[in-house]
Amino acid sequence: MEKNILKIGIIGLGTVGTGVVKALRQFKNIEIVECAVKNLNKKREVEVNKLTNDPMEIASNPEIDVVVEVAGGVNPCLEVLKTAINNKKHIVTANKELLAKYGDELFELANKNNVSILYEAAVAGGIPIIGPVKTTLRGNEFKKVMGILNGTTNYILTKMESDNLSYEECLKQAQELGYAETDPTNDVMGYDTMYKISILANIVFRKQIDYSEIYVEGITKITSEDIKCADELGYKIKLLGLAQKIEENASLDIRVHPVLVSKENTISKIDKATNTVYLEGYPVGEVMFTGPGAGEAPTASSVIGDILAIANEISLTDTILPSQRVKTEEKAVQENILNTKNSYYMALSAKNIRGVIGVIGSICASNNINLQSIIQRGIAKDNTAFIVVITDTTLEADIQNAIKELISKDIKVKNLIRVI
Amino acid sequence: MEKNILKIGIIGLGTVGTGVVKALRQFKNIEIVECAVKNLNKKREVEVNKLTNDPMEIASNPEIDVVVEVAGGVNPCLEVLKTAINNKKHIVTANKELLAKYGDELFELANKNNVSILYEAAVAGGIPIIGPVKTTLRGNEFKKVMGILNGTTNYILTKMESDNLSYEECLKQAQELGYAETDPTNDVMGYDTMYKISILANIVFRKQIDYSEIYVEGITKITSEDIKCADELGYKIKLLGLAQKIEENASLDIRVHPVLVSKENTISKIDKATNTVYLEGYPVGEVMFTGPGAGEAPTASSVIGDILAIANEISLTDTILPSQRVKTEEKAVQENILNTKNSYYMALSAKNIRGVIGVIGSICASNNINLQSIIQRGIAKDNTAFIVVITDTTLEADIQNAIKELISKDIKVKNLIRVI
Repeated sequence: MEKNILKIGIIGLGTVGTGVVKALRQFKNIEIVECAVKNLNKKREVEVNKLTNDPMEIASNPEIDVVVEVAGGVNPCLEVLKTAINNKKHIVTANKELLAKYGDELFELANKNNVSILYEAAVAGGIPIIGPVKTTLRGNEFKKVMGILNGTTNYILTKMESDNLSYEECLKQAQELGYAETDPTNDVMGYDTMYKISILANIVFRKQIDYSEIYVEGITKITSEDIKCADELGYKIKLLGLAQKIEENASLDIRVHPVLVSKENTISKIDKATNTVYLEGYPVGEVMFTGPGAGEAPTASSVIGDILAIANEISLTDTILPSQRVKTEEKAVQENILNTKNSYYMALSAKNIRGVIGVIGSICASNNINLQSIIQRGIAKDNTAFIVVITDTTLEADIQNAIKELISKDIKVKNLIRVI
Repeated sequence: MEKNILKIGIIGLGTVGTGVVKALRQFKNIEIVECAVKNLNKKREVEVNKLTNDPMEIASNPEIDVVVEVAGGVNPCLEVLKTAINNKKHIVTANKELLAKYGDELFELANKNNVSILYEAAVAGGIPIIGPVKTTLRGNEFKKVMGILNGTTNYILTKMESDNLSYEECLKQAQELGYAETDPTNDVMGYDTMYKISILANIVFRKQIDYSEIYVEGITKITSEDIKCADELGYKIKLLGLAQKIEENASLDIRVHPVLVSKENTISKIDKATNTVYLEGYPVGEVMFTGPGAGEAPTASSVIGDILAIANEISLTDTILPSQRVKTEEKAVQENILNTKNSYYMALSAKNIRGVIGVIGSICASNNINLQSIIQRGIAKDNTAFIVVITDTTLEADIQNAIKELISKDIKVKNLIRVI
């Protein structure tokens, strides 16, 4: 028998499902046995062995080890996943609503059946957050977790500010660009963020969270006027999910609502569809994870991380501890700096400045170096000019040659700094 | 026998070692058997069962399961850890120099002896990076990893810019504040960053890295003049460790040197002793991890994460997959929003504006609300004034009462947004 192959079934072949199928191609030890979709006849980007429109078929297919659920919503996912768990299948899901509402029930069932439910993709898309909190940061006592957990609303708020448009105009734009769904309620009313912060609060504070007790307020009431005033006062408006421990009574303060974030705070600089999660605890202090909060590929990254963790756990791959070394005999071929291409900042100084710009220009040109900008700064008493140039992308070897020539023309190279 | 207790020996009781001892107090299933220190008579912040000045004693103590090495440097650590590994002890180390120089040898020995070497603390202090790359992000093909990996140099560069001081002056300050060592060579010449980027390149690209082939340039030549020019041109100067794949010849371009980073790039905003690691790969896209790069507590967080991973691996704790749920029956006590304290932004509008500021002021005062700022914006034709206030930290219940009173006085509350 081929127990060195992990066999998975996928429920849902939308954006994320498609991303998972694509990104799994490189993994020879993972086989996609069957996928469940709503519409069997729909044209699809990816080919899969077998399609069904009955997700229960996946849940009961004896061939399948792991059910990957990327369909979303409570129905039929709740019943399907329960069946799959009772059939001793591991679950990888991105379904934040299902976990926030029925997580306790599902995890208890999973423990009974001795299978795992992994859900890195359910919170902050491609950003590793569930994993680090559960492993690397496990020794911490956390005080606070908060973040921008919904890309749609952050995109709308960013647009309202940058283009000085109304909420309605930006929502329309977001819908046209596919950042927002036709029915945006889930995002703009803050429910999506509520599901995510309740999942985060559970792993960060190790307590069962009742999502229905979370205070939630969306962004629909935010006006351009508010954004302007906030800006004048030194703030940006962001929709945050927040969970913090109240020391006095050991209770948790969990909520979702727009906040004014000081421009000094890095969170205020997280724009467009980007997500970020901020954690505060002892001993680690403050850490922040930033990245793509949604989208086909990023979400697939987290789903696949979970699939590989299961493959690893049931020993289809060699077990790797969170920070253990990759076993490799392969030596890297390392590039010599002279063969690398960079943009460069050069600080030059030259006496008797007449024509010096011309000399610099021609030496650069003869070494295939294009100048992006050149500034001449004040001339010293001794008639020395300080000149700064920034080059286009150039081969390091060419720069080094140019420097030799510059020196030969009595032009000092005071500093050379690469630019990214 | 008490195999439900993990027994560790610690080599080095400096800043990090002390932090580890403190933070381990809460873990009943981890016992510190013995610590090796240079000076037995030195007064210490923490009490430990047994001290020795011979680290080899730790490496050969049959009682010890895990050797935690937080002493640093190659000698005597290399020989001590080899002995410990041959004695079948797992290793947790923060020693970037040792891993960069002798990692291949040590990991091979560890594989032979079937023990683990974990080293989350060796790179970027408290920031989880080795773990996420090895687990959650494991499905990715990476193109690039780069970051600010040395707090001392970033502190110096930040100071040079903010206080317009010379490199020498800032180094002196950093030394006085304990951010830089008496001999700063390792940091300012870029060697510390070189060790870290070579460790990152190994796990990100899964190849053996020869640290001696890495191009390295420190910050000692950076002048205030350079920082000023960079600023004029829209850049900040940062010391980066960088490793990227060159597609054409599948080689790795690994280097450490100062760079001009555009102010548009978030990396330019990472100031003082903060570290950040940026990763680019498929399918995840771009992710960034930011946090404390050094210090007693943050580094201890990573060391303890590794110790717990080993406890977990040798099943002293129930195995937890990277993103599996925490098993908990404990329900959270969730705070009602009315009992929370926040600062508030209130957008108000009122007709017949005479005295309205006074009314707002007295209503707030009578509800224990102090105003931080109040702006009155243009008056509409219909004599309506738009007024914005920001309050000090206030009980939500008080704000809600104030709002009722304001409405009763014909003052519209157009919006209420909390401030963090």
